[in-house]
Amino acid sequence: MKISCQKSELMNGINIVSKAVSSKSAMPNLQCILIETSLSEIKLIANDIEIGIETVIEGNIAEAGRIALDAKLFSDIIRKLPDSEVMIETNANYQANIRCERSKFNIPGTSGEDFNYLPEVEKNKYISLSQLTLKEVIRQTIFSISDQESAKIMTGELFEVTGNTLKVVSLDGHRISIRKVELKESFENMKVIVPGKTLNELSKIIKDDIDDEIRLYVTDKHILFEFDNTKVVSRLLEGEFYKIDQMLSNDYETKFTINKKEFLDCIDRASLFIKESDKKPIIMNIDNNNIYMKIDSSIGSMNEEIEIKKEGKDLKIGFNPKFLMDALRVIDDEDITIYMINAKSPCFIRNEDDSYIYLILPVSIAA
Amino acid sequence: MKISCQKSELMNGINIVSKAVSSKSAMPNLQCILIETSLSEIKLIANDIEIGIETVIEGNIAEAGRIALDAKLFSDIIRKLPDSEVMIETNANYQANIRCERSKFNIPGTSGEDFNYLPEVEKNKYISLSQLTLKEVIRQTIFSISDQESAKIMTGELFEVTGNTLKVVSLDGHRISIRKVELKESFENMKVIVPGKTLNELSKIIKDDIDDEIRLYVTDKHILFEFDNTKVVSRLLEGEFYKIDQMLSNDYETKFTINKKEFLDCIDRASLFIKESDKKPIIMNIDNNNIYMKIDSSIGSMNEEIEIKKEGKDLKIGFNPKFLMDALRVIDDEDITIYMINAKSPCFIRNEDDSYIYLILPVSIAA
Repeated sequence: MKISCQKSELMNGINIVSKAVSSKSAMPNLQCILIETSLSEIKLIANDIEIGIETVIEGNIAEAGRIALDAKLFSDIIRKLPDSEVMIETNANYQANIRCERSKFNIPGTSGEDFNYLPEVEKNKYISLSQLTLKEVIRQTIFSISDQESAKIMTGELFEVTGNTLKVVSLDGHRISIRKVELKESFENMKVIVPGKTLNELSKIIKDDIDDEIRLYVTDKHILFEFDNTKVVSRLLEGEFYKIDQMLSNDYETKFTINKKEFLDCIDRASLFIKESDKKPIIMNIDNNNIYMKIDSSIGSMNEEIEIKKEGKDLKIGFNPKFLMDALRVIDDEDITIYMINAKSPCFIRNEDDSYIYLILPVSIAA
Repeated sequence: MKISCQKSELMNGINIVSKAVSSKSAMPNLQCILIETSLSEIKLIANDIEIGIETVIEGNIAEAGRIALDAKLFSDIIRKLPDSEVMIETNANYQANIRCERSKFNIPGTSGEDFNYLPEVEKNKYISLSQLTLKEVIRQTIFSISDQESAKIMTGELFEVTGNTLKVVSLDGHRISIRKVELKESFENMKVIVPGKTLNELSKIIKDDIDDEIRLYVTDKHILFEFDNTKVVSRLLEGEFYKIDQMLSNDYETKFTINKKEFLDCIDRASLFIKESDKKPIIMNIDNNNIYMKIDSSIGSMNEEIEIKKEGKDLKIGFNPKFLMDALRVIDDEDITIYMINAKSPCFIRNEDDSYIYLILPVSIAA
């Protein structure tokens, strides 16, 4: 193999596929980047079995070929090169010779014969949306997946398409996050559970741009994200997702509107008084015009009031402040509306058209 | 005690004195900030015995008094407050009541009776220079102090004043860094060893401004840094500093001038091939117009050449790349000049007027 390309182009490609490099693994291939060059394109591939990424970079091909290189060393070398043309040439012993201006490197590689290529994903069922929208939807739901491998389904997110609506759901036993987005056209219905890790890595490499599209193809076992010159393939999580519809009551006894930033900042201050060893809830007293917040722990105490617009009954209710803050941090609205039933039922933060719904369970408090 | 001040002013003061708060200590006072209020000023004080800091903040005093508060909790609370006026009031039980807009906090404090105040430093001998200059001098020498407590003197820096020259020296057994600066006037001679930790913390709180002065007062045991509304007092290290003058030969057999950035970047790339377990030196071959750099380890190999302007003999010499990089990173000159004698003698990076001298020992290489 003998290729050349600009350092910035190569570095960009390496950064993309590196998201699928296993940091620790007994199998050397999982820590490698494969460079595969045909007569027409230079492809970088990495695959840690859970998630596989390939991307095509621009460059000149003098000789087609293939080599697997240690991802960390290769990436470190390219990063430290001057912003200039990089040449990579391999010999029969799979030594890679990397040159840039007056720097020359020799690093050992392997043939890549036993490299794990990305699984073939049939392109029957798909949806298309902007990269920005997907990135936002992930950011606004990913915080409430579970990290407990014992409840595998909870470590992923439900992606459900009905007509022209995409619904994304995550939950961890204490809360549920739901985002709905309207797609530009209708697609065939789908319902899959995508691993949280895949979504986390994906959102690091897709763009913040409403004009750049991404396509999601699904089969029974896999999901393929295709965008720009890049393909990301991930296994799906198998099993049934939790039935959440029966939990999403529209009934309420107390409803109030509050400035999001004031509410978030106040809860953030209150969280200073929570110790790992002594998890006190933050207690809220909601009356006609104000919410009174109070926390009292061995560290000290805080109380504060915020003006609200309320309908319905007064209520005293306790929450784990982290759960409230996680949801408030990802909502972009200036004012939010919260619906409650009683001190033991979940509260809902939702907007008028239900494009987001955050359900949070309260913590029981002494009466 | 009953005071009020702007959040930003209080936060700024807390950030300054926090540099002298002990992160882990069995003595609660070392983890506290003392607020001491006379009729005329509000003072914040922290002291971890090695280093003590006090700073005066602006505010209104309704009632003089004193309280010691846990530094972390106090700092966290103030940081999370809105940008508004903060009121602090203490009661007879040393509970502190902190208010800001509609937030109210109660946290426990102590009387501060047994607080370690800053030692009194006699103001006989002093020097004065700009905060920026002191900050630069620290940055350009602090990297070569030793972290080995067994050689206590090496964990500090020599500050030596002769007439109107301040010389700052650090060394760790492999290298020596020397910076000389000309002061605006002549001062009484002094020669003290300041703990590296003090200098590190100090350089975080002094300004990047050539117009802001700082004064250094020294006694046999202490150094006092006085600037803006702040005093930093530190113990000095006791003992004789190493005699370095006999090591600073002006003789050389090889002298060359090189572009600093090219040289640094090249060594940085070479350092990728060094493993903790297998410390290979970087080998340089210096001939008339070029320096050829080479490293060859179990990870791979690199070689590169850089144009130089040379006088004197050709030379082959090996270095620990870290020591070269540390010095090159803090030199601001575009081109630097390096002086060498032979493969076993130290090399010198120095400028024409010796305002900086970096001595680095080579590593022996197979002939």
